[in-house]
Amino acid sequence: MNVVQIVPKLEPYMLEVEETLQQTINSNTRIMNTITHYILRASGKRLRPALFLTAAGLDKPAPRLVDTAASIELIHTASLVHDDIVDQSALRRGMPTVNAKWGNEISVLAGDYLFARAFTLLTQSGCREIINILAAVIEGMSVGEIEQLTDAGNTELTEEDYLDRIKKKTACFMAGVCQAGGVVREAGREELGALYDFGLHLGLAFQIKDDILDFQGQEKVTGKPVGSDLRQGIITLPVIHLLRFGDGREDLSRRIRKGELSEARLQGIVREMQRVESLDYCLGLVGTYTERARKALEGVEDGEIRENLSRILQANVSRDY
Amino acid sequence: MNVVQIVPKLEPYMLEVEETLQQTINSNTRIMNTITHYILRASGKRLRPALFLTAAGLDKPAPRLVDTAASIELIHTASLVHDDIVDQSALRRGMPTVNAKWGNEISVLAGDYLFARAFTLLTQSGCREIINILAAVIEGMSVGEIEQLTDAGNTELTEEDYLDRIKKKTACFMAGVCQAGGVVREAGREELGALYDFGLHLGLAFQIKDDILDFQGQEKVTGKPVGSDLRQGIITLPVIHLLRFGDGREDLSRRIRKGELSEARLQGIVREMQRVESLDYCLGLVGTYTERARKALEGVEDGEIRENLSRILQANVSRDY
Repeated sequence: MNVVQIVPKLEPYMLEVEETLQQTINSNTRIMNTITHYILRASGKRLRPALFLTAAGLDKPAPRLVDTAASIELIHTASLVHDDIVDQSALRRGMPTVNAKWGNEISVLAGDYLFARAFTLLTQSGCREIINILAAVIEGMSVGEIEQLTDAGNTELTEEDYLDRIKKKTACFMAGVCQAGGVVREAGREELGALYDFGLHLGLAFQIKDDILDFQGQEKVTGKPVGSDLRQGIITLPVIHLLRFGDGREDLSRRIRKGELSEARLQGIVREMQRVESLDYCLGLVGTYTERARKALEGVEDGEIRENLSRILQANVSRDY
Repeated sequence: MNVVQIVPKLEPYMLEVEETLQQTINSNTRIMNTITHYILRASGKRLRPALFLTAAGLDKPAPRLVDTAASIELIHTASLVHDDIVDQSALRRGMPTVNAKWGNEISVLAGDYLFARAFTLLTQSGCREIINILAAVIEGMSVGEIEQLTDAGNTELTEEDYLDRIKKKTACFMAGVCQAGGVVREAGREELGALYDFGLHLGLAFQIKDDILDFQGQEKVTGKPVGSDLRQGIITLPVIHLLRFGDGREDLSRRIRKGELSEARLQGIVREMQRVESLDYCLGLVGTYTERARKALEGVEDGEIRENLSRILQANVSRDY
């Protein structure tokens, strides 16, 4: 999923976002510099800044927009650094995580530093409303992550619980950045609502797609081993479906709770998911939320903005990482 | 050190700050609620909000001031939660730390949540300039902590290194909140500089006093065992002095580097500090910075504000926790 290929007009903006990111994280402290540059080199999809810029319209002078977009990516990056501590992840985007490389203690501080840099950049460029939106996003994400953590290995988790969780963890962030794009161009109340709704449903579809890829993706492409969430006790939608319709559910439940999941067992889980069509079921939900997001786009007035957001939405459905 | 006893006019404000803090951290998520209320119950000195309010002047209608003061305390609390992970502390203010009670993973997220709540509250109440000041404070603190961490057990640390570190870790925070108080009442550029300078030198004196209490304080009063920083490899000013003037320096260096510090050894360290007057030396520096802070106060125009800040400054010298 390459945002510049999807919306070519994004290119000059995204180049400036990269430049701003690199400049912003320069610090006088060598160890902090090494770490923050390492984090940003493990380059992500930059989807959130791209959504913000696209929702803001791509016909504006760049500087103020670019700083806000860069802050958004910094907040996302900081939350990933902290999530990797929480989930005890060893790999992210095919590279060792900060916690795997430097330890949890340093990761906590590097994440805090990135959060703080983001707010410094934001107060220099963004308006109060956008700062407020993003602070609320961080609150929601930490609540969602803490719920996920305390629910690790809970095989009683329902689809509703799951949807509530990914809303907090992922969807509200995308909703917030789309809305923030509207705030920049002083869109009306209703259009702001439509942008929020679009981002929210795109976010749900995006996270479900991610959770499908956790079982279906190629490690070489996704940068993570198959079933990496389940290995950490995180129950995602494909697993909820399997626990409901698959064979040997009680045995699987017990193994998840006890964390007894060998490589062979995980391969067996993927095969059983294919048999009972768990991933197809999830793909169906991706379709449902994609449709709702598309419906929300009708409330966006500018035809070009609508078209560009629609392209990003569509690209999520077919992405393989 | 009880700020309300020192500056009685603070009382109604501080009561409202407590109320705002309690309300602000209410979340719909039970586990998050439990943790955040636990953290705030382990009540601190509330020095930073008190400094902000005092510098802002205590003759103003409260609401906006109180929200900003509460945000300041939230930021301080969040940073303590994260520091306790970094330092692997088990006790804070005589109670088990969040990491000791719930684990590092939950502590990371609880800290993030508090940081985010602080910025939400700030954007609702404070001006951009204050948000900017506080974001810079968080940046500085994470850099200072990361330096302290990578320097753990480094017995080559100089007094200059130490002063640079505590400036980032503590003094810049106090400088920032004093300055922010001036921003609220639209103080001129020079007076803002004086307030910053006052807070900076008070902060240096405060942290050195803290580091003295780490060796001199009563565990019952400070809530921490004697030498708790040194047990974690953190080299503070009394240790730097002892490593320079004490007997058996090479042996001590080796033990610090290897983390071989028994209870009896720590008692021996305290005795040797008494013999070579390490703590007296540090107290001398507390006096020096207290004087500089007092000098800076001359740049504060309002007599009552000057007097109140001066009382807080003086109280630091004689506090025993």
